[in-house]
Order: sequence, then C-alpha cells, then structure tokens
Amino acid sequence: MYNFTFQNITKIYFGENRLGHLGEELKKYGTRVLMTYGGGSIKKIGLYDKVIEELQKAGLTVFEMAGIEPNPRHTTVNRGAEICKKEKIDVLLAVGGGSTIDCTKAIAAAAFYDGDSWDLVTQKASVTNALPVLSVLTLSATGSEMDPFGVISNIDTNEKYGMMHPLLQPKVSFLDPTVTYSVNAFQTACGAADIMSHIFDVFYFTNSEKMYMIDSVMEDIIKTVVKFAPIALKEPQNYEARANLMWASSWALNGFLQSTAGQAASCHAMEHELSAYYDITHGLGLAILTPRWMEYILDESTAPQFKKFGVNVFGVDEGLSDMEGAKKAIAALSEFLFETLGLQRTLTEIGIDDSNFKAMAKNACAGSVIHGFKALTPEDVENIFRMCL
Amino acid sequence: MYNFTFQNITKIYFGENRLGHLGEELKKYGTRVLMTYGGGSIKKIGLYDKVIEELQKAGLTVFEMAGIEPNPRHTTVNRGAEICKKEKIDVLLAVGGGSTIDCTKAIAAAAFYDGDSWDLVTQKASVTNALPVLSVLTLSATGSEMDPFGVISNIDTNEKYGMMHPLLQPKVSFLDPTVTYSVNAFQTACGAADIMSHIFDVFYFTNSEKMYMIDSVMEDIIKTVVKFAPIALKEPQNYEARANLMWASSWALNGFLQSTAGQAASCHAMEHELSAYYDITHGLGLAILTPRWMEYILDESTAPQFKKFGVNVFGVDEGLSDMEGAKKAIAALSEFLFETLGLQRTLTEIGIDDSNFKAMAKNACAGSVIHGFKALTPEDVENIFRMCL
Repeated sequence: MYNFTFQNITKIYFGENRLGHLGEELKKYGTRVLMTYGGGSIKKIGLYDKVIEELQKAGLTVFEMAGIEPNPRHTTVNRGAEICKKEKIDVLLAVGGGSTIDCTKAIAAAAFYDGDSWDLVTQKASVTNALPVLSVLTLSATGSEMDPFGVISNIDTNEKYGMMHPLLQPKVSFLDPTVTYSVNAFQTACGAADIMSHIFDVFYFTNSEKMYMIDSVMEDIIKTVVKFAPIALKEPQNYEARANLMWASSWALNGFLQSTAGQAASCHAMEHELSAYYDITHGLGLAILTPRWMEYILDESTAPQFKKFGVNVFGVDEGLSDMEGAKKAIAALSEFLFETLGLQRTLTEIGIDDSNFKAMAKNACAGSVIHGFKALTPEDVENIFRMCL
Repeated sequence: MYNFTFQNITKIYFGENRLGHLGEELKKYGTRVLMTYGGGSIKKIGLYDKVIEELQKAGLTVFEMAGIEPNPRHTTVNRGAEICKKEKIDVLLAVGGGSTIDCTKAIAAAAFYDGDSWDLVTQKASVTNALPVLSVLTLSATGSEMDPFGVISNIDTNEKYGMMHPLLQPKVSFLDPTVTYSVNAFQTACGAADIMSHIFDVFYFTNSEKMYMIDSVMEDIIKTVVKFAPIALKEPQNYEARANLMWASSWALNGFLQSTAGQAASCHAMEHELSAYYDITHGLGLAILTPRWMEYILDESTAPQFKKFGVNVFGVDEGLSDMEGAKKAIAALSEFLFETLGLQRTLTEIGIDDSNFKAMAKNACAGSVIHGFKALTPEDVENIFRMCL
C-alpha cells in the first residue's frame, strides 16, 4: 500500500513580472528558439510583445509557429517538427494554455522522429528523445505546465489520445496569474471543471487505499476551485482568485497527489471521444459527463466516497446515509458546474446527438473496458452518454 | 504578492521494498559509492544488510563511513570529505535520519573543497560543486531527504548553522515507512514536533499574505501529524501512521508550501543554540520553545493567525475572540506536545539552566534581530529561553 514513485523536475516562476528570467532559462538549452502559440490572444493582451522583448534582450534567435488550435492536431505537430528540423531548433517555448503546451511537447518528440507524429501518439513508434520545452502559461486548466502528458487529436479519424514521456515535461514554466485576467467566463469555468476532474478521475474517486494526508490535500484543492472560480467569474482581475486557480491547476496533475495506484481516468476517456468527434472544449465535456458518471456508478460500494466528497467539499450533512449523502454530493456538484459556473448542462444544448455514441463508446473502452472507480463497458459508456442528452 | 520560485528535483521511491531500485539509481552517477550512517541502528533492524546486498548485486564498489552523530559535527564532515578524495568516490548514499543526510550533504560539498568544511558552513567559502547524494530515510522528521538544507555543528565553538545549496538536494530518496517501525517513542515524538515546526516557522505563522490553497495544505499536514503521531506512539508498526508521518516530513520542507516570502525561522534559530550548547535532540528543543514563543509574541497582530490555527487544527471554538482563541490554540498545542506526545515540558527537566542564555540569545540573533513572525531581539530571545525553564 502507498507504493509510488514521485519526481517532478519542472522549475516554476510564479507571480507577476517574472519573465525577466526567461532569457537566462532558455539560454541553458541553446540559442535557437521556436516560440509556439495559438490564435493570437497573446498578442491582444500584450504578452507576445513582452516575451519577444525578453528573447531579443537575451540575444536568442527566434522562430515562430502560430495557429496551434484547441484540441491540437497531429498535422500541426508535423508542421512544428518540420520547422525544428529545418531551422535546427535547440529549445521550444510554448506560450499559451494546455493545447499549445501539449502540442509543443509532441513537437519536441516529433523533432527526433522521421515520420508522421501520429505514430508517436499511437505508440506505433516510441519517443526516443525530445527537445527541451519551456512554457509561459495563459490558462489555468490542464496542468500541462508541470506534467509529462500531452493530448493530440487526429481530425481525419476522430481519434484523440494522450502521450506521456518524462522527456516531455517542461523544464521551466512561468505562471503569472495576471496573464489570465483576460480569460473569459466560459474558458475560466471550463478550466475549473478540468482541474476538478483531474483530481476526481485518477486518485480521488478510487478503490485503492488513499493516504489521509493526500486525500485531505485533494479536497483542499477542490475546495480552492469551488471558492475561487466563482470569484474569478465575477471579478476577472482578482489576483487572489486567479493565483489560486493557477497553482491549483498545476498541483492537480503534477504527480504529488498520488499515494496509491492510479487508475484509468473514466471521465477523461469518455470526454476525449466527445472532443475528438465534435471538437468541443475539454473542460465542458468533463463537466457534462462527471455528474452523470457519478450517478451511473452510484451503488453501495461507491456511495461512501461520494458522500465523503460532499461532506468535506460542499458541506453535505454528515448524518445522512451513504446513499443519501452521495446523492446530495452529486446534486451539489451539478449545481456548482451548471448554475454557479454557468456551464451548459447537456450535450443536446451544444448540438451533440446520439448518432456516434456507439462508435465513441467502443473507442473510449479501447476494445476492452475502462478500469476506473467502477469498470465501464462500451454499453455503460453509451448509457452515460445518453444520460447527458 | 505570491511571488516565488519552486523546483524540487528529488526522485522519491515511496513504500515497502523499493530498494530494488537502489543499484540502478546509484549507477547513474558512477561506481564508487560511499555509504554513510550513524550509530549502527541500521544494522539492528537489518537495513544495513539489505542495502549492502543491493549495492553488491549492482556491482558497485562500496566504502563505508559509520558514526555520524546526532547534531553532526564539522569534524565528521572533514573525515567524510577525506574519504571521498582518497577513494575517488563518485556518489554518496546516506542511510539514516536527518543528521546522517545533513552530514552527507556537507561531505558532498566538502569533497570539492581544500580546507576545513566549517568554512563552507559559515560561508567563508562558497559551495562550488558537490558529489551527488542519495538517501535511504530512517526517521520522519527533518525533511532533509527532499530539500537542499543541511545543519552542521561545531562542538568547539558551540555553533550550529544551516547550509543551503541546490547541489546538496538528494537526487533520489527511498522512503519506506516500515523502516521507521523501530523508531522509539521519544524520537517519534521529536520528529513530529520537528515536522510541525517547519510549517509554523517559515510559511504558516507569517506576516506575508498567504495563498488560500497552500494555507489549507499546511493545515492538512499539521493535522496529519496531530492525527498519526499518537497512533505511531501506541502502535509503532502501524503502516498508515508511519507512512503519513514520513510523507508529511518531506512535504513540510520541500518548498511546495511557499506562496509568499519566507521568513527567518524563529524557533529554529533559537533551538539551534540549545542543541549547539547542549547537544539535545532538535525536535525536543523545538517542542519546548514553540508554545513559549507563541505566548511571548501573542498580541493583537498575531492573535488572529494563532486562533485560525487553533480552530482549523485543534477544533478551537470559532466564536471566541482572537485573543481568547489564540490562547486556547497555544494551550491545545502545549497539551499535544507535552501530554499526548509525552515530551518534556521545560529546559530544567532536561538539565539546562540559564547560564548560557545571554550568549545563546546573542548568537541566535546573529548580531541583529530574528526577522520572523515578530522580530526578536537578543533580549526577547533571552526572555523566551527563561519562559522555558
């Protein structure tokens, strides 16, 4: 019990105006930098100019790759890898949210692979080496800034898979809460749902024995999100709220919350199908799925943990039975996600019908079952998708 | 606000029977290993044999240095550095508690210094390089297994100072809770006091603005100690208790609890004088000092945080005034340390009188004041020492 290995090498510069360290950190890895970013919001908020200024000050040779999309595509990874090879890039700098960082991680590995990067995502080929990745985070959500994971989509085949390799972990990440002041209400809410889901999915709702200390810390991170996401929605420039959400996003997935065997992330597996087929925002998919998944797997074996969650996070009455407490907990979570955060409650509302559910359910189970808090067969997954209509 | 830099590179193998990874980890750094340990308790519990077996299996050339004392001496550091130079040691393996690991860190740096290691401790000379250090932890207390700090004593001058350098951070630490089954009640209690004090002293009782999430996590770790130290005293072989205490010791000082400017550690500064002069166990000195320090600095500015601590950790009535709540909190902490953990309550009980208080107080303030939660002058420190009689 409690057998795990932990290491997290990422250096974090947290706080306002820390970019003065960007040049010195990049120069440890070389002089030819590929700066990657998304649709240009970093230009609107002035972050692009600030980063470029630091890179120039440090005398670095800068190449740029814009246009990394949400749910980043393997074709975009291929494009980045081409630039790395052609321009002999030494180091990658991702400026953006989880999609940009994830895509940049995949580029880092693909730069050493002669072939389609999709091979690396599907493990047809192994990651053998990777360019160093640094990041400037602009969205509190995925935790990609401090983890070895990346999720890449193949739009031709409606597939979306995670990659994981220690070499993909960012060497350095810059977390400036003020950079997220301009994140809109919808993305702020989706980010909050994503952070919570990372905790729920792998180590919090589990059959394995949890360490008391870590279990308490997980509840505190969830409570942090419950407390500060609504504040960030009302006051987008509230530093305290943005800072707590930002650091919560990193902690939720940086490996520190393990004390037990991790399990297949049920909601993540199901959500990847939604965003692979419909290109929706990951956090929104998770928000719609999570309470339905909880409801679907609610039984005598799962009720005690759902109730404990409700008691410790939402103040559900401890005196209730496990089953009653669990139901109140699920209701409280639904209210938080769909009322307080204002996220859409159903797949129908976002234009998704049941036409692909069977194929999606099969994919989510990867030919077998999802071994999560409760094992889910394709039929179970299809049922859960239907509950979301 | 919340401006900090975080990095912690130590790889942790947590759990029972993880030593199978010892050989592979050491071999990353070379083949000539110096294994350091203390008074031989590792032989009594069979750990020595297990470690040696792994080192031999890995084909490493093993040198040994036994006899590292509690409150390790600079002369011991010198002895270790000599061995490193003479035997061309590649990597150090500390098998023990905080004293052994601290001493080994200092040896790692002194191996690259031609002169008395005390120069490195007093910063007369700078740490320029260090041999890699790995550790097998045997006591849950100091956090040395996952931090860049070491504390070394000079018995001739009654001085005890901390060293800090990123190069001193262990590359890998093995944390097996079962190894601490044989730790006696007194050392278990002192370890618990040490863990709590690390949290109190630097980031919890502070004037700086704290991040909500981190503040909650600090309370979780303190509550973890309050819950499991008494269990470990009653049932020394309780895995859950030993595991929670072990991981709490690492978290308390691994840098993750910062979200604010750290401050001078008041109780640590005062305690180092006690153990420098009287060679007492660090955790015991901290236990005796902490409630008196709290009492001494209790005023309108400090009461709210002491009360918050009492409410969240010991269930003190939230309806009390700040001052009343703070007094209850201090009383609850005293009861925990001196009744529940059974530690001695006064310096008098452990044979310390006031004869050196003036000199110790002056040293503790290093010619100035201790800039902690409240600034302490030498006169303040002397008053606090007197309260401990």
